[in-house]
Amino acid sequence: MNITAFEYNDEIIVVDCGIAFPEDEMLGIDLVIPDVTYLKDNIEKVKGIVLTHGHEDHIGALPYVLRDVNVPVYGTRLTIGLVENKLKEHNMLKSVKRKCIMPGQFITLGSFRVEFIRTNHSIADAVALAITTPVGVVIHSGDFKIDYTPIRGEAINLQRFAELGRKGVLLFMADSTNVERKGYTMSERTVGESLDDIFLDSEQKRIIVATFASNVDRVQQIIWTAQKFNRKVVVEGRSMINVVKTAIELGYLKVPDKMMIGVEDINKYKDGQLVIITTGSQGEAMAALSRMASSVHRKIEIKPGDKIIFSSKPIPGNEKTVSKVINDLYRKGAEVICEDTHVSGHALQEELKLLHTLVKPRYFIPVHGEYRHLVKHAELAESIGMKKDNIFILSSGDVLEINKEGGKVTGKVPAEQILVDGLGVGDVGNIVLRDRQKLSQDGLLIVVVTLQKQTGQILCGPDIISRGFVYVRESEDLMLEARKVVKEALDQCNKKKITDWSKIKGVVRDALRDYLWTQTKRSPMILPIIMEV
Amino acid sequence: MNITAFEYNDEIIVVDCGIAFPEDEMLGIDLVIPDVTYLKDNIEKVKGIVLTHGHEDHIGALPYVLRDVNVPVYGTRLTIGLVENKLKEHNMLKSVKRKCIMPGQFITLGSFRVEFIRTNHSIADAVALAITTPVGVVIHSGDFKIDYTPIRGEAINLQRFAELGRKGVLLFMADSTNVERKGYTMSERTVGESLDDIFLDSEQKRIIVATFASNVDRVQQIIWTAQKFNRKVVVEGRSMINVVKTAIELGYLKVPDKMMIGVEDINKYKDGQLVIITTGSQGEAMAALSRMASSVHRKIEIKPGDKIIFSSKPIPGNEKTVSKVINDLYRKGAEVICEDTHVSGHALQEELKLLHTLVKPRYFIPVHGEYRHLVKHAELAESIGMKKDNIFILSSGDVLEINKEGGKVTGKVPAEQILVDGLGVGDVGNIVLRDRQKLSQDGLLIVVVTLQKQTGQILCGPDIISRGFVYVRESEDLMLEARKVVKEALDQCNKKKITDWSKIKGVVRDALRDYLWTQTKRSPMILPIIMEV
Repeated sequence: MNITAFEYNDEIIVVDCGIAFPEDEMLGIDLVIPDVTYLKDNIEKVKGIVLTHGHEDHIGALPYVLRDVNVPVYGTRLTIGLVENKLKEHNMLKSVKRKCIMPGQFITLGSFRVEFIRTNHSIADAVALAITTPVGVVIHSGDFKIDYTPIRGEAINLQRFAELGRKGVLLFMADSTNVERKGYTMSERTVGESLDDIFLDSEQKRIIVATFASNVDRVQQIIWTAQKFNRKVVVEGRSMINVVKTAIELGYLKVPDKMMIGVEDINKYKDGQLVIITTGSQGEAMAALSRMASSVHRKIEIKPGDKIIFSSKPIPGNEKTVSKVINDLYRKGAEVICEDTHVSGHALQEELKLLHTLVKPRYFIPVHGEYRHLVKHAELAESIGMKKDNIFILSSGDVLEINKEGGKVTGKVPAEQILVDGLGVGDVGNIVLRDRQKLSQDGLLIVVVTLQKQTGQILCGPDIISRGFVYVRESEDLMLEARKVVKEALDQCNKKKITDWSKIKGVVRDALRDYLWTQTKRSPMILPIIMEV
Repeated sequence: MNITAFEYNDEIIVVDCGIAFPEDEMLGIDLVIPDVTYLKDNIEKVKGIVLTHGHEDHIGALPYVLRDVNVPVYGTRLTIGLVENKLKEHNMLKSVKRKCIMPGQFITLGSFRVEFIRTNHSIADAVALAITTPVGVVIHSGDFKIDYTPIRGEAINLQRFAELGRKGVLLFMADSTNVERKGYTMSERTVGESLDDIFLDSEQKRIIVATFASNVDRVQQIIWTAQKFNRKVVVEGRSMINVVKTAIELGYLKVPDKMMIGVEDINKYKDGQLVIITTGSQGEAMAALSRMASSVHRKIEIKPGDKIIFSSKPIPGNEKTVSKVINDLYRKGAEVICEDTHVSGHALQEELKLLHTLVKPRYFIPVHGEYRHLVKHAELAESIGMKKDNIFILSSGDVLEINKEGGKVTGKVPAEQILVDGLGVGDVGNIVLRDRQKLSQDGLLIVVVTLQKQTGQILCGPDIISRGFVYVRESEDLMLEARKVVKEALDQCNKKKITDWSKIKGVVRDALRDYLWTQTKRSPMILPIIMEV
């Protein structure tokens, strides 16, 4: 959920507006968006949202945030193209102002002058931002790497970073994702060379390449290699089809005439004449490759001899699902290649040192990464001469006040994780998640009983209904016995003239819980329901 | 769930008897044990269970399997020691026969002669088995690596493998876990050297080392290093305490006098005089290190300056939980070291080639590993000269019939995954898991209504109770409207004189589901409950 607000007097600009994917314990949650209470409360100050690049963790929350904070959106052409896809889906295309800015250009938003500086990343058209403010220049790197031989366009504009650095930079904020890795990232171009080798080695075989839909340069390289080997290209998977379409329209992807064919036409070609570019490189259960691997894809079936290339690396947390897909592919007789077919989009240690050295900021905030990455990025900055006191490791919501004299965390704004589940935004909170967690572990038992209003005697029931607890047909004795336990508890209540429903429910719940724990060492959710007539 | 049965005429011996840990989708499941229906059905044939080493995935299912198939258990001393811990917990120590066998010794079980051959692994006392049968010799590697300089005892008995190979081996079954990795594993001893370096560099600091409880040699090295640097040792975490106790009793772990102190005494020593050896290297939420990291450990609190060493690698699937613990530790100001502090216990490619070359079997079955590892291990065997037709990649339950003339899969025995949840073994199946899955995603709604028997009119309700769906207080309108939808559906049923309960429930469920989907794009489980008086 990358989002940063810069405030000076009564003006605010926002950089990026991303989602996070739900943690394992956020059961049933689709995505997580940032809490923008502070922006809502200061809506009249907000001049615009500036985007560094088009990845979900930088633009994904826009359709939600713009509902409450409808301000103009600025980004490079591909970034804005991808934002427009999103706004279209949410029926918001007409209501949001947006503007394309070229790398090298700048915009003025109140007292802020925001310059877009070309960088390299695993999506085209990524930029860093140089934000000139009345108290000094802030450089925000966005996600970046250094690629001297990028696929499309130019290398990162190191000269501009150097020039700004020479003039004096107050604050540097830089990508920490790969700070634990030594050396330099390889150029995106090296992947093309690997692809050439693999294609050369697979003459008669059908090739399927799974990669990130947003990595347009990667797709371009697959297409170039396909062209060299006279293969037709099929694009599969909803997000892959969408991004490829947008990238072609905007000129970020060049596909030779008649090279692209529809999935319905694959049977017209021999295996050796085909490449399928697909989503599913993260093992996502619903993505095209996973559906092929588990034989539920409607059009494409994996067969012995197929060569599947993962042009990707599992994002932390996805290792197991990716592994499952690979095993499924091998079971179908396919061959899977994962080596030398991917490079990272984030700067490694030596690249970070280079940018730090060019920018030579007075103050530094490590951003983008887990907490330990921020700590290690701070250490890296120290190792090349930065003073420890000039580095700020911030937590979400921290307010840092800074000027030429120094910086200090002076407060905190709301920074909760807002959970999106279906159409609901923020209506699933901790209580609901705790219930889901409990239900998922041991299921539930519902105890229903109808009592006579006057006497409190049982008119109907108690019945016990279970879901997710035990398979009832194989546990009849347990359920019969449980019913007896409940009946006894109710009789006790009646004898003791307990008429308060919540008390009766408590007695029933306790008795049943104790009984089930002794018998099964499980504690399902127990819901006693009392009806009275 | 490693378990293999070898059968000749009316005799069966079983090798290993392990558990698997539940997959993510097996909600609420504690562990998974193998289906031993075939052994139960042929109980009179089963001569014994022979164990290769004491890891959970090789011995963990014994307490469950021995209940139905109570046969003698054979293993090396540490292995049997760990089995005895298990049997004690399950109150089965008196009912199970067990026998310690030394590496180099053999046992005769009917027509089978089983020789224990010393190997190296990440637990002491691991062995391979050479099983002499009337049709030839079968060698089962167990989990193994080659360590020329092990911590305790001798290196793997390569000479014996060579000797058996020279005499002729019918079938080789070998560990495939690390078949994708090039080269050789490092010796366990290299970890000790790293530990020395880290300790040397941490003079005043408290050191906490997290590792696998079962890796006794690793614990021994930590103790040796602690001794060099005059530190006292605290052992934390239930399984660590248990294994260390057993290992000391059996002489597998040597601890200098007065070196080990209780956790309650740590305040008597300075930070620089302490090492804490703990469980939790996999980020398990309930393990000691995770509890320290999240400040819920009762005795030990992480403080700035603490040095935490992960002497382990995340098992696939645990990357994220490990990462979470590391971030928590950094947040408390600790330093975390994960590099050069672990070596694998499984043979890499060159080690596998060596053993294949020594054993030179006629037939080969790759074992221990995911499906893709089996395929790659088959390829490795082919690459050093084995005929493809002589390699069998088997699935769980496959029956391979083999003799000098050849081998063939001739059938299948039951090989389901049996799920253990609390005390229940096998009472949670697909229906229960599907319910838990559904409940975990969108929660549930219970609709309760009491009808009059004669007229079918509503006497009480409908009431709607929700759990894990929405936070009701924030969704009052939705719930009110939902109640109306249900009432209308019930009225419709009454009007149409529908009296069949299951039909009424169906109508209510459909109406409510459609309404909720339109409003929220979620589909909770809906349970209509009708009471009649």
